[in-house]
Amino acid sequence: MLTKNNTTFQLHPEKETAMSPLAAFVNYVHPVSDAALKYISLHSAPKRVSRGEYLLKAGERCGHIYFIRKGVIRGYIKDGTREVTTWITAENEMVSSIRGFTLQEPSLENIQAIEHCDLIAATYESLQYLYENFIEMNIVGRKLLEQYYRDAEERAFISRIPNASKRYRHFLDTKSNLANRIPLKYIASYLGMTIETLSRIRSKKV
Amino acid sequence: MLTKNNTTFQLHPEKETAMSPLAAFVNYVHPVSDAALKYISLHSAPKRVSRGEYLLKAGERCGHIYFIRKGVIRGYIKDGTREVTTWITAENEMVSSIRGFTLQEPSLENIQAIEHCDLIAATYESLQYLYENFIEMNIVGRKLLEQYYRDAEERAFISRIPNASKRYRHFLDTKSNLANRIPLKYIASYLGMTIETLSRIRSKKV
Repeated sequence: MLTKNNTTFQLHPEKETAMSPLAAFVNYVHPVSDAALKYISLHSAPKRVSRGEYLLKAGERCGHIYFIRKGVIRGYIKDGTREVTTWITAENEMVSSIRGFTLQEPSLENIQAIEHCDLIAATYESLQYLYENFIEMNIVGRKLLEQYYRDAEERAFISRIPNASKRYRHFLDTKSNLANRIPLKYIASYLGMTIETLSRIRSKKV
Repeated sequence: MLTKNNTTFQLHPEKETAMSPLAAFVNYVHPVSDAALKYISLHSAPKRVSRGEYLLKAGERCGHIYFIRKGVIRGYIKDGTREVTTWITAENEMVSSIRGFTLQEPSLENIQAIEHCDLIAATYESLQYLYENFIEMNIVGRKLLEQYYRDAEERAFISRIPNASKRYRHFLDTKSNLANRIPLKYIASYLGMTIETLSRIRSKKV
């Protein structure tokens, strides 16, 4: 059994319907009906992954979306033998492969925990049920997608800044919470530079 | 007066409420109520811009979202004196500055027509009215944002491919409709390479 503040989340949710942390997060984004909250609590489950473990590998079907209660996760795509990190995200965010999840096509992305993570998982089918049966869930989806689209646009911009120092400066301005928390190799991969270049920039600026 | 197939769109919509091309597009994404379609038709208006003209400049408030009936538009951010093109899009897509529009903050982006464009414009206020008064419009918004978030993730990936030829190959695979239509300087800027490098790659591969 997991607890968050005073809320109890049952591993056997069919026996009890206390609000899951995912339901609480959804209701925080936009208030939804009690019936929707109950459905989410009944159809989501805690999941723990260790550092280095995968939530999704390229080629697999992406059947789940996760709410991060604790930990850091990255998405990367293989370019030959090289790993191209396209996003890194932490607590209180939802993660999945946007393409793999929404289109239900084999994933191009790999999703990997880079710290021990406590997650809440929901299936693609549960989310579709929620969208179809609780129309207000589309307000939640719309608001979250606006935020995640803004973040993706930011990732599309930062990688196009020609100067490596400016890319790192921009990373510090927008993701300062991650800069001293995660291994340099992932920051270097995300910012499209070698670890040596990143170390040189950090030794000058930090 | 503009026409699209057999649908007539009045320049003075207060006199008549024939369905605007934007309403038809919305209804195509997900069927909405007649009242919502009527509201969209009454609160959207055609706009024409010439090649090179701006829909938004950095620092301005982003008050409109546009549906492209004809033409090509790009978004770019200034990095010093350099223009960093972060997206290029064409017919049957909605465009705005996702950050400037959804947060109503001064825009970081410039949005510029790179061909003569026929657009349909709607205001931020009209869209909020639609979301608040016609709940099914949130289904439309959620579905469009899923698509545009996927596209933004794609833009975040392509720019991180280390090899310039592979970036161009990936561009051809995903945006073949634009490859022979728009000036090379914008493709080069979007792909993070010089025009000379892009020309050299094209002369080998095309």
